[in-house]
This record gives sequence, C-alpha cells and structure tokens, in this order.
Amino acid sequence: VGTPSRLLENSCQFFSDGRRKVDYVLVFYQRKQISVRGGDRLHRLSRSAGDGEVCVDLAVEVELEADPAEGEMVLIREEFEARLLEAGLEMERDTEVRVYGPSFTRLHVPWQVLSREAEFLKIKVPTKKVRPPPLYSRVCVKVNQPFQPNIPQLGHSTTKQLSHCFSRDKLHLYGAFYKYQPVDLIRKYFGEKIGLYFAWLGVYTQLLIPASMVGIIVFCYGCYTVDMDVPSLEMCDKQQNFTMCPLCDGVCDYWHLSTACGTARASHLFDNPATVFFAIFMSLWVATFLEHWKRRQISLNHSWDLTGLEEEEVNTITYHTPHLFWSILVSNGNLHVLVLLMDRLPGYLINISSILFMFGLTFSAVFGVIVYRIVVSALMAMSPDPETKSNVRVTVTATAVIINLVVILILDEIYGAVAVWLTELEIPRTESNFEQHLILKAFLLKFMNAYAPIFYVAFFKGRFAGRPGDYVYVFNDYRMEECAPGGCLIELCIQLSIIMVGKQLIQNNVFEIGIPKLKKLIRAWKGKGISLEEREEQRARPPQQWNLDYTLVPFEGLTPEYMEMIIQFGFVSLFVASFPLAPLFALLNNVIEIRLDAKKFVTELRRPDAVQAKDIGIWYNILSGMGKFSVIINAFVISFTSDFIPRLVYQYMYSQTGTMHGFIDHTLSHFNVSNFRPGNAPTSSYLSETTVCRYKDYREPPWSAEAYQFSKTYWAVLAARLAFVILFQNLVMFLSLLVAWVIPDVPKNISEQLKREKTLLVDVFLREEKEKFHLLQSLFSSKDLPSQGHPDTAHFRTLPLGLSQGLGQPPGGEGGESRVRCRAASFSQFTRQMSMSPSNNAGRQMSMSPSNDAARHTAV
Amino acid sequence: VGTPSRLLENSCQFFSDGRRKVDYVLVFYQRKQISVRGGDRLHRLSRSAGDGEVCVDLAVEVELEADPAEGEMVLIREEFEARLLEAGLEMERDTEVRVYGPSFTRLHVPWQVLSREAEFLKIKVPTKKVRPPPLYSRVCVKVNQPFQPNIPQLGHSTTKQLSHCFSRDKLHLYGAFYKYQPVDLIRKYFGEKIGLYFAWLGVYTQLLIPASMVGIIVFCYGCYTVDMDVPSLEMCDKQQNFTMCPLCDGVCDYWHLSTACGTARASHLFDNPATVFFAIFMSLWVATFLEHWKRRQISLNHSWDLTGLEEEEVNTITYHTPHLFWSILVSNGNLHVLVLLMDRLPGYLINISSILFMFGLTFSAVFGVIVYRIVVSALMAMSPDPETKSNVRVTVTATAVIINLVVILILDEIYGAVAVWLTELEIPRTESNFEQHLILKAFLLKFMNAYAPIFYVAFFKGRFAGRPGDYVYVFNDYRMEECAPGGCLIELCIQLSIIMVGKQLIQNNVFEIGIPKLKKLIRAWKGKGISLEEREEQRARPPQQWNLDYTLVPFEGLTPEYMEMIIQFGFVSLFVASFPLAPLFALLNNVIEIRLDAKKFVTELRRPDAVQAKDIGIWYNILSGMGKFSVIINAFVISFTSDFIPRLVYQYMYSQTGTMHGFIDHTLSHFNVSNFRPGNAPTSSYLSETTVCRYKDYREPPWSAEAYQFSKTYWAVLAARLAFVILFQNLVMFLSLLVAWVIPDVPKNISEQLKREKTLLVDVFLREEKEKFHLLQSLFSSKDLPSQGHPDTAHFRTLPLGLSQGLGQPPGGEGGESRVRCRAASFSQFTRQMSMSPSNNAGRQMSMSPSNDAARHTAV
Repeated sequence: VGTPSRLLENSCQFFSDGRRKVDYVLVFYQRKQISVRGGDRLHRLSRSAGDGEVCVDLAVEVELEADPAEGEMVLIREEFEARLLEAGLEMERDTEVRVYGPSFTRLHVPWQVLSREAEFLKIKVPTKKVRPPPLYSRVCVKVNQPFQPNIPQLGHSTTKQLSHCFSRDKLHLYGAFYKYQPVDLIRKYFGEKIGLYFAWLGVYTQLLIPASMVGIIVFCYGCYTVDMDVPSLEMCDKQQNFTMCPLCDGVCDYWHLSTACGTARASHLFDNPATVFFAIFMSLWVATFLEHWKRRQISLNHSWDLTGLEEEEVNTITYHTPHLFWSILVSNGNLHVLVLLMDRLPGYLINISSILFMFGLTFSAVFGVIVYRIVVSALMAMSPDPETKSNVRVTVTATAVIINLVVILILDEIYGAVAVWLTELEIPRTESNFEQHLILKAFLLKFMNAYAPIFYVAFFKGRFAGRPGDYVYVFNDYRMEECAPGGCLIELCIQLSIIMVGKQLIQNNVFEIGIPKLKKLIRAWKGKGISLEEREEQRARPPQQWNLDYTLVPFEGLTPEYMEMIIQFGFVSLFVASFPLAPLFALLNNVIEIRLDAKKFVTELRRPDAVQAKDIGIWYNILSGMGKFSVIINAFVISFTSDFIPRLVYQYMYSQTGTMHGFIDHTLSHFNVSNFRPGNAPTSSYLSETTVCRYKDYREPPWSAEAYQFSKTYWAVLAARLAFVILFQNLVMFLSLLVAWVIPDVPKNISEQLKREKTLLVDVFLREEKEKFHLLQSLFSSKDLPSQGHPDTAHFRTLPLGLSQGLGQPPGGEGGESRVRCRAASFSQFTRQMSMSPSNNAGRQMSMSPSNDAARHTAV
Repeated sequence: VGTPSRLLENSCQFFSDGRRKVDYVLVFYQRKQISVRGGDRLHRLSRSAGDGEVCVDLAVEVELEADPAEGEMVLIREEFEARLLEAGLEMERDTEVRVYGPSFTRLHVPWQVLSREAEFLKIKVPTKKVRPPPLYSRVCVKVNQPFQPNIPQLGHSTTKQLSHCFSRDKLHLYGAFYKYQPVDLIRKYFGEKIGLYFAWLGVYTQLLIPASMVGIIVFCYGCYTVDMDVPSLEMCDKQQNFTMCPLCDGVCDYWHLSTACGTARASHLFDNPATVFFAIFMSLWVATFLEHWKRRQISLNHSWDLTGLEEEEVNTITYHTPHLFWSILVSNGNLHVLVLLMDRLPGYLINISSILFMFGLTFSAVFGVIVYRIVVSALMAMSPDPETKSNVRVTVTATAVIINLVVILILDEIYGAVAVWLTELEIPRTESNFEQHLILKAFLLKFMNAYAPIFYVAFFKGRFAGRPGDYVYVFNDYRMEECAPGGCLIELCIQLSIIMVGKQLIQNNVFEIGIPKLKKLIRAWKGKGISLEEREEQRARPPQQWNLDYTLVPFEGLTPEYMEMIIQFGFVSLFVASFPLAPLFALLNNVIEIRLDAKKFVTELRRPDAVQAKDIGIWYNILSGMGKFSVIINAFVISFTSDFIPRLVYQYMYSQTGTMHGFIDHTLSHFNVSNFRPGNAPTSSYLSETTVCRYKDYREPPWSAEAYQFSKTYWAVLAARLAFVILFQNLVMFLSLLVAWVIPDVPKNISEQLKREKTLLVDVFLREEKEKFHLLQSLFSSKDLPSQGHPDTAHFRTLPLGLSQGLGQPPGGEGGESRVRCRAASFSQFTRQMSMSPSNNAGRQMSMSPSNDAARHTAV
C-alpha cells in the first residue's frame, strides 16, 4: 500500500522560502455562501527568527451574505490567527484565495517561541552524553539482537531521517511480529501519550507469553490426566447405571448418566487441580504485570525526561472546546458559575438514570437470550424428529452464544456513543476530567455488556432450577434451564472462548479496519461531489502533502484502543480459572493488534496532536481494580462453578477409602418418581420400571424424615466452598501485596543513574563555588574593595546551569544534542491560553490538523 | 518547673563578638589520660562572611600517652573540624583549654553557606505575600478561635521571639488540652519530621473524637436494650432450668445456666447488632483517617514548601555512622563491597531465625499463661473452701491478664533492643533504609507481642476443648479451658480493656516520664562523681546554655513514639467489634500523650537535629496495612466470636415464631451422663437424678444415629458465618475504596492556590518576555547590529527568577520575608559528605548536639 507521502519531495515540508519548516497546518472549511476578499490589510510582524522580516498576508474582510454565524466564524478565525501571530508563530497561506472548500494555513514555530514554551512546560533537556552501559546490559543487548527492529541506527542519523520522511517510520512499525517495538521513535513522532500506549501494549503482550505458556501446560495437564480422573471414568462407566431424572416435563424421558460421558471428559480438561494453581498464578501475574508496567513507565519517564512533569498536568484547567453543547454555554464568562451550579445537577441525574437504564438494557438482553434458550430447547424437545432432539443442547448453546455476541457488539458501539453524550452533559471542568469521566462511564457500560452473560453462566445458571417435583418455571410453562451434566464450567468455557475470540476477530477486522476504510471512502466521495472543475484543477498541479493528509480520518483519541485491551484483560484475568487458554488467545490477538494499530496510526489517521503524558492515567486504576476484582471472581469460580471443593470434601470427609471412588454416587440425590407433580413425569418411558431417579444436588433422600431438604452434606460443602473463598482471596491478596512490595517501583539502573546524575550536579556546583571564591578573592586583592557588600550575588550564575546548557544552543543546529522540540503539548497550551479569551469558539470550525509530514523536530 | 534557660541572658546565643549566632554546638569528651597542648598552629581562614577576617584557634597537638585509639580520636577530631572550616563554617572554642571532661565547640553557619546548601536542597522560598483568605475560611477562623493556642501573634514577631528564647515555646505547647497544636512553630523549632509527628498525632486524636462518640452511643444502645434482649432474659430465667454439664472432671458438679446470668447480660453490652454497624463504621473511619491525613500532609507540604522534596530524599545514600558495630567494618573503603556480599547473608539468616525465635518466645509466653490459667483453676476447683471455688473464674482471669500485661511490657522493651541489633546486622545501605528495616522488625515483634494473647482469646479459646465424654487434655491431666457461658466475647473485652489501658498507663507514666528522669539523675550523678574542684569552678562562673543542655537526654528518634501510637491504633481498629469503648480510651490517652510528648521534647531532651521529611514514611504503609487487616479481623470477630450469626440463623431458619424465643435451648446440645468416661462424671452431685446434661455446641443428640457428631445446624451456622465474613470483607473493602476515591488527596484550596501561583508565574514570565523583546528591539535599532546571532541568550535572565528573589536578600535581615534557614538537614548533608572520606569515624566520639538555645533562624 503505497501511501501518498512517498510521492512527495521534501520541499513540501517547508514554507515557500524553503527554509522554515511547516510545523502545523490549519484547515478552514469555507462554505459557498460567503465571498471573501483578501489582502486589504497587511500585518507586518518583524521577528528575529533567523531570516529577517516576514510579511504575512493575514487580513480577511468579510461580507456577510447569507448566514451571520458563518461570517462570525471568519471574524473569529481572523482574531485567532492574529493571536497566533502575536504569540510569535509565523504563517503562510496559499497565494490564490479560494472561494470555498478547505483552505490551508501553514504555521511555523520559530526557535524563540519553542524555547519559551519549553521553559513553561519545564521540558528537560540532556546536559551530557550517556555513559557506556555496564557489561551485563551489553550482554543482554547481544542476546536481544535478533528481536530488535531493523532500524538503520538508533542514533542521530535515524532521528534526522525521521524528521524528514515519514514513510520510513512505517517500515519499522511493521518490522516483523517477533521484534520489539521502536517505542522511542513512536514517541518522537506521535508524542508521549501514544508512545506510552504502545509501550503498555508491548509490556502487556510480552507478559502474556509466560501466562499463555503456563496456560498451555495447565491445559496439557488436563488432557494428560483425563484418563486417570476417577469421577469422569465413573460417569462414563456404563455398569454404574445411574438413572437420571428427565430434563424436561412430560416429553423427556429418564436417561443414563453415561450418555453425558463426553461433557464429563471435556470438563476435566478445565476443571482439575491445576486450574486452582493457575488461578493463583494468574492473580500474581496480574500483580507482576502492574508492577512491571510501573517500572517500565518510570524507565520511560526517565529516558523521555518526563520526571518533573506531574504537577504541570494536574493543575492546568482548560475548557474542553471541541464539545459543542456546553462550550457555547461556557463561552460567556459570567454565565459560567451559574452553568456549573444549575446545569450539573440535572446532568448527574440524567447520568445515573441513563446508566441504570443501560444496565437494565444489558440485563434484559441477557435475559432475552436465556428465554430464547429455554423456549427453543423446550420446543425442540417436543419435536417428533429424533435427530432434532439429540442435537438440542449443541444447537441451542451455539445459537444463543452467537446471539449474545452480536448483541454485545451492537451494544458496545451504542454504549460508546452514550458515554460521550453523558459525559458532555456533566460539564467536567478540565480536559483530563472529561477524559476520566468518559472512560469510567464507557468502561462501566462496556464491562457490564461484555461480561453479563458470562457472569450469568458462571454464577446463576442452574442455581434456580429447583429440584424434581418442585421445579422453577418462567412464564408458567418453561422450566428454568440447568447446566449440562458435566457441570456449568464447560458451558462457561464455551461461552468465554466464543465471546472472546469472536469479539476480537470481529472488532479487529470490521471495526478497526473496515469502518475507517469506509469512512475514508465516504469522505473521498463527498469531496468529489462538491465540484468538478476543482478536480481538474487538482490534476493540473500536484497535490500538496496537506491536501492528501486532509483526506485521512481524524484521530479520535486512544480510548477505544485502551478499552478494547482492558476488556480483553478482563477475559484473561477474571475468568481464567475456567479457561486457561485465554492468555494464549489474547497473545495471538495482540501480536496482530499492535501491527494493525501501528498501521492505522501511520497510514489511516491524520497525525495526532502530540500530547505529553507521564502515565496511562485512569487506565492503570482500572487495571488494578480489575486485578482486585479478579481475585474474588476466580475464588468464586473455583469454589462454586467448578467441582473442586465437593471433590475435596468427598475425599477427606466422606470417602471410605480416601480415594475418589464413589464420588458421582455421592453427588447425586434420590427422587421417588411417585412424587412427580401430575404431568411432570415422562409420558412414555423405555425405563418404565424406574421407581427412583437421581438428580445432581445434595438433598435428603425420599425415605428421610426431612425428604428433599438440603442434607448435612450440602451445608458442609457450602461451608467448605465459602471457607475456600476466604482462604483464596486473602492468600492471593497477601501474595499480590508481597509481589508489589518485593518488586521495587524504580528500576535499579534508573535509581543508580539518578544518583550518579545528582552527584555530578553537586560536584559541578561545588567546583563552581570554589572557582567563584577564588575569583572573588583575586578581585578583592586586586581592587581592594572596602565593603563585602553582597557576597552572594555570585550565586545567580550557578542557578540556570541545567537549563541553559540545553537552551543556549543555537537554533536549528541539526547535529546538536539538544532535544527541545515544539511538542504539540506546548502548542495546545498556547491555544488553551487563547481560548480563555472571549473568542474561544474559534477552535470549532478551524479544525487543527497537524500536518503529517511537517516535522516538529526543529532542533534535532 | 523552671527550666535553666529562663535564667540566661540572650548573650549566650552568640559568639564572643556578640554578632554571630551559635548554630550548633559540638561536644568532645576528653578522658583523663591525654594531655593536650593547644595553640601550636594557627589556621587562618579568611571568609567574606560579614565581619572581615576571622581567626580561629584550631590546631591541637596530641601526645599519645596511654591509649592510641584515644589519640587517634583527637586527630580525627582535628581533621573533622578542619573540614567544617573548609566547608565555610565558623568556629569558637572556650579560651581556657580544659584537660578533661566535655569541651564545647560552637559553630556558626554564615549566610553564604546557608544559601549554598539551600540551593543543593532546593529549599523553596516564598516570593510573594499570601493573599487574604476568602470569606468562608475567615468564618471558620472565627468559629475555631477559642481552640487556637494563645500565641501572641502568628506573624513575624512570634517567629522572632521563638528564635531568641525557647521557654516561650513550651508555653504554647502546654496551652490547654482543648487547643490546637502550634504545628507551624513545632516545625520551625524541631524541623519537619517532628512537626509531622505532632501533626499526625493531632489528626489522629481529632478523628478519635467522632469514633469515641459513636462508640459511646453503641455502648449506650447495649445498656439500653439489655432488658429487652430475649437470649439473656432466657438465660436468667430460673424456670428454664437448663442443667449444664460440669466444668471440670470429678470435683465439679452439674450447674444451672441461670447462675451465668450476669455474664450473659454483660455480654449483651458488647454483643449486639449495633456492634456490627460499629465495626463497619470503624473500618470506614480508618479509611477516612488515612485519606484525611494524606490531605493534611499535602497541606503541610504546601505551607512548609516541601512539595519538590521527594526525589532528593530518596536518592541520598549515606552510611549510618552512629551504629558502631558495622561502621567500623564499612570505614575501610575497599572492604565495603566484600562486606556487602559476605556479611549480608549471615545477617539475614540471623535475622529470620531470631525473629522466629522471638515469635516462639511470644507464643510460649501466651501458652504459659494459658497453662497457668488451666492449672490454677483446676487446683482452685479442687480446694475444699467454697469461697475459693465460687471466685475461680474472676481470680484466674484477673491474675492471668495482669501476668499477660507484665510479660507484654517486659518483652516490648526487649524486642525494641533486639530489633535495633538485628537491623545493624543487616548492614542497610542508607539511613532511611536502616530506619525502615528497624521499624518493620520492631513493629512485627511488638505487634505479635501485644496482640498474641488477644488473638488467642478471640479465635482459639474454647475451640479445642472437645465435648463432654471426649474432652481434650493438656499434660494428660488438665482439661483445655472453655469460654465463660456468656461467650468468649466478654472475655475478649476484658482482656482488651485491661491490656490497652494498663499498657498505656504504665508506658506513659513509667517509661516515658520515670525512666528519662532516672537517666537524667544518673547522668547528673556521674558528672558529680568525676571532680570536686570542677564543681567549685562551675559555681564561680554561671553555666553556659550548652553546659546545661549537655545534661539533657539525647534524642533517640521518633520510632518509639510512633510505635506506641500504632499499637494503640491496632486496639482501636483491629478488635473494635468486641470493645466499642476502645476509641474513647485511646482519645483520653492521646490528649495526655500529646502534652507529655511536647513537654518531653522541650524540657527533657536535647534539641534534636531538624530533619526534613515530606511524609511519615513507612508508618503510613503500616497504618494502611493495619486498616486492611482490621477488616478481616473484625469480620471474624463478629462472625465467629460473637453470637450474631447463630442468632440470625436461628431467627430466620429455625425459629417457629420468627422471634428469638427458644434460642438458648437451640444452642445447647444434649449429653447422656452415662456416656461420661470413668472418673469424669461428678463424684458427688446435689442433682443426682440428672440423666442428660446440656453443653454449648451444635451436635447430634445421644438418641441420634450419629450421636455427638456435628449436626446439620452446625454446618448451616458455619456456612452462614463464612458467608458473613465474605460479605463483610468485600463490602467494607469496597466502601473503603469508595471513601478513598471520593475524598480527593489534594485539598481544594491547595490545588486552587497552586493553580493561582502557576498562572501568576506564567504572567511574570510573559511580561518579562515582552520587556526583553522591547529591550532587544531598542538595542537593535540603536546599535544596528548586523547579525541576529543568538537571540535566545536573553533567556538566561528569566530562569533563576523563583530562587533569586529569595536568596538575593542580604543576610541577617531580621525583618525580611525570606525563610531560608540553616536546617539540620543541610548540615547533616554536609557531615555526610565528609563522612564518606576515610575519617568517618570522627562522628562517633564527637557527639553532635545542636544547642537548644542557639537558634538557626538566621534569616528570620
């Protein structure tokens, strides 16, 4: 897929003078109704920015023809551009003034402005070369060599190339699936926030490797021991002829347990002691993952010089202009406080009720599928065709899961939109606040949506079915569904694997690739629709890079990317006790996902605004919350969904021999068929001599004084299950705390490097101090000043040491070490300051798309 | 208590020139064997420090007479002092050279050195005045007025006074018990670390007020409902004549349950539904407390200008010299790495085995007391005296608890010393590391020590006693003890209250007041013993402040103070479900504790080195860990120690009427006396017609097929208990997380102030930028320079803005705003740097006691 940028020379990255680089491109979309006359006034801004005076054609006089709002837009645009110039930016427009359609304004940010903004943001700059790495790390590098991406040289030359042509980048990102990601390059090109996303995805994927390996081992253990497992052997044993009670009223017959042999054996694959170990392992894995990511984050913060950033981010208050609804309300300064007080309460109320409504929607969807299952199985059971009858369970389960999956996918998209709408109603005060609220809401909704059917199968299915002679009915006619004879775990496993794999496949293919392609097509089609003569014009002169970039899809934030991964993380952590292969599927998905995301970011989207970020924000809290939640969920899955505890109880409390022999008999209660309610007994049976049928529950036998009441065994098993939950939860929580405590947050090499740097700094200070002292002494001795006045004024010079070494370098020195860049962060800080003023509507129409090609690494 | 400092004029705070203040006093204790001749060399150090050249008598020539080590000390001292001078400090000694005994060296830290160190430590200085507080906070101030300590003015004048006379301080600290603490003054005088301790203690004590109020209400609810409680009414009902099985073998008779009426009623005071509410309340209280403290800490950090401190502290590596054992090992630089590798492993091994041994010791002490109780009650039961017999339980419980208390107090002191010894063996790398390891170990040991007997009563007592006919015996003869008929909760309550109150009373009175007094007496007595003629000499001239301060006890860190409070916090949080009055007792103790601590710090101890600290360090982790632990402990106390769950189960599962009537009968199992083992039945009984006696347990009756096995009710109750634990734990954990999430870490006024400051800073920068631009323009226009060369060199001047405004002030300006002080932190940084050199043994003999009177607020 040859992208358009390949066709271009580098010249397009510069202003017409060929010297100043294009750092940003503004797009103003002009509708047809307005005629614009250009060039009435000329703003002459003289800037000492490297090449004398710059004349910029700026003024636009507007005749209001049809729509006064449109005209206002043009005025606002003018003011916006004037403020940009005032802030020191330089501007270039196309010489011909187009009457309508998109018009592009290129911005150049001169060195002076860059360094001033760098000061404000306290961007750190390196003051010295990196020391050679110690021996062991050099060995590590050797070992890792084959997995490193084939970047010519990770030194200056690469950095330089990067700033010139952007298609080179793509090559690295594709690289090969087994190679590390070029995270540093991603950060340089896309900014810290996106860099952190890819780094996080990398760490997550990397750590999935051991998890999926252990998962495979656990699965293999299940396969290996399936022939030695006494309970499943007993179930398959045709000599132990357990006559089971019928699965539906009237039409269903008694049946032999040995016919469920297959599901029993399949269950053992996932329901064996190794699973308990795996659940503990995975809970600790989550703790390790979180700690590992913390370390990686700190390493990245160090190598990206972000260590001092935190406070800056927290304290900037900005008004979130892109969201039209309330930005209009807020634009009037006086109204603001009123808006806050009056408009928040209904917003919150709508929020809560909407979220509750969405929860209700999710639950009804789940319940709908349950009803579907119940009704369809009842109908199929009544069918005279024997083949239909025998396939009831398979057909119903498969179709129901697919319906579930489709519902999940549809609701997922709806909930994403609803979350944005609800967050806008809330009028959050800062951009980061907005993002946080949005993420929390979207997460809550999508989490419920994805997991509700799974929770149902894990913890509720079959628990409200009643017992023979006292079944529970829905709609008066249909018996509540029960689990398969092999236990609910195998159904949980099927449900999980289909939803997980299906969701990922469909979302990756359809939503992440298909829909952006479609959008692009629509955009292109729209563009064609407007004018025919323009296309002629386009064919005449080669399209500029910004024209091509304009056709790309705008970047809409990282939230969907993270969300997808977090929901996947839930599959990997929450129900891992029932599906040890989940990490493997996640791993396979992610290896593809990283490449797809990279491709999307590089070729499908407009280059996003680079945003400085120190961490992954609220996602970390969500991850850690899910880690905590997964402990209790896994505890319940093991103790209530699986047969692990009943087996243990049988073996150590009831078994005569201390082995598992007799377990199946022990778990089946007796039912006297004469106790069936009228019409519930099988109408025709080939086992007509049956007087007692069995069912899976711990209840008193018919001949007991408390017939069909829960037996003592029931309560003992329940107590054991609950005790296991307490034990598991507290043990795992303690171990997780221990893991978090043992793994230090700051990697050793980083903390040592910080120490070294600090010592060095102290040394420099002390030396300077000494020199100053000598200087003073020699001054005093030569000039013989009478008073020692202010001996400490000399301190001033020592202070700016850290910054001045970096900032003091001449601008544009391409071989220099200084890494001050005009990051988008500094730019958006600008626009923020300006949007505080009354003209903050300007940003709405003037969508600001940074030019993909225009490199911002002016100093590199 | 008139302290000596009151007698002094201010002159003693200055060098003999009356201008330079005494900032530190070094003490060198000279033994008799060495004769010292002074004044052979004269180091002339010229410093531009305010008053021309300063001649300091420094050199000491040593004749080695008896002990070469002693002589070496003197040489080391000389080098140490030389390095102090080299670092820019000024020194003064007594003119007469004393032959032996303590000799004092006064240090003055000139302004130049202060500001250099302030730079290193990045101490923040205020650049502008505080804005007037908003209206609502002024109202708050008004309301709080009566609780503010009577400090003349919290402005400059107070600060000035503080730096002159230190007895004034004491007045504030006493104040009155209902007044707030003058935390800012404490911090100014003692440094941040001690200031934070008092602030923490204040927050804790303040939050104990609501907790104890709710506790009193819960207790009152128990008192109020005791006459309505059906179970205790049933127990006291003499008509329901439950004949209970004997409490000991042979000599004990059957007894009627109604005789245990008293304990049943007492139990209800603590064992009622309100306790469950209180346990949940207290768990949330812990979460609130932690969050509240976080906020307070951030407020203090802000008002004490510590916000940027963190990284500095973490990265300073120092060798912990005061601990003689390994400081000798480390002193030889080359040995160091070897020491680390070779000496750590055995250290760790000794550590682990010692801690295990101490645990064993604690457990044996607990077990010893149990055996004491069992044996004594058996012996007393056998006694022929009926009065002895009737008082068995009271006597045994009371004496046993007192023995427990004494053992706890003794082991507490031992464990404190052991923890120090073990930490020294570990050779931790940094001072903060040392402190952390020490605290963790001491906490572990002291926690086990204080709580082991309580844990025993709460969870183990009476659970291993067996049942009639199958009792459990220790030493073959003595039956394991059971709980009182009213349940174990009342015993737990007694145990808790006696240990808690007793421990606090004794530790406050004996250890915190008595022992320091004793130490002082011993020191004074020792001083007297040395020479008689010297006392004459002392009488002749008035003692200097440093002489008086030298007689005070050295400061030994905050660890014991924190430890005491943390253990108390355990009483308040861990077992609060069994003793709702614990917060009240803690509150009463703390109100006294704060005053006692303040008095101790001001009058009994030498003024401690001021240490900068941003937070309370590992104590916070311990507190939060205890908070988490308390949730599970309270869950277990409610569900297993109290009768809450059995009552609920009876009411909703077994009661015919839905009321509690018949509960006592339900909890008592039947025992056929013919099943007693030979010799176990009462030898003589006034209830000779008894065939069935009752005992408290859920077991099958003698006429059942599974006689004396656990009944179905037992398992049902057990399941309910366990389910309650899970429910309680997860509910409370979730609520705590919610509390932590809802309460923002940064108080709103602080975050807003930070925002304002930032805006201000940006404004200043922008203004400066503009001015510079105009300046440049005018320069270019006037001089007409040909090249624009380096337009950004002008940036230099804007950089040091924040620091220079504070540091640029002339030294010693008493009315100035700058608050740069020679904090002990900066001083110890000094000594640390010097102790890196081979002469780091110097610190050992030359105990550095900062002079209590010598103020370090040179700039205030």
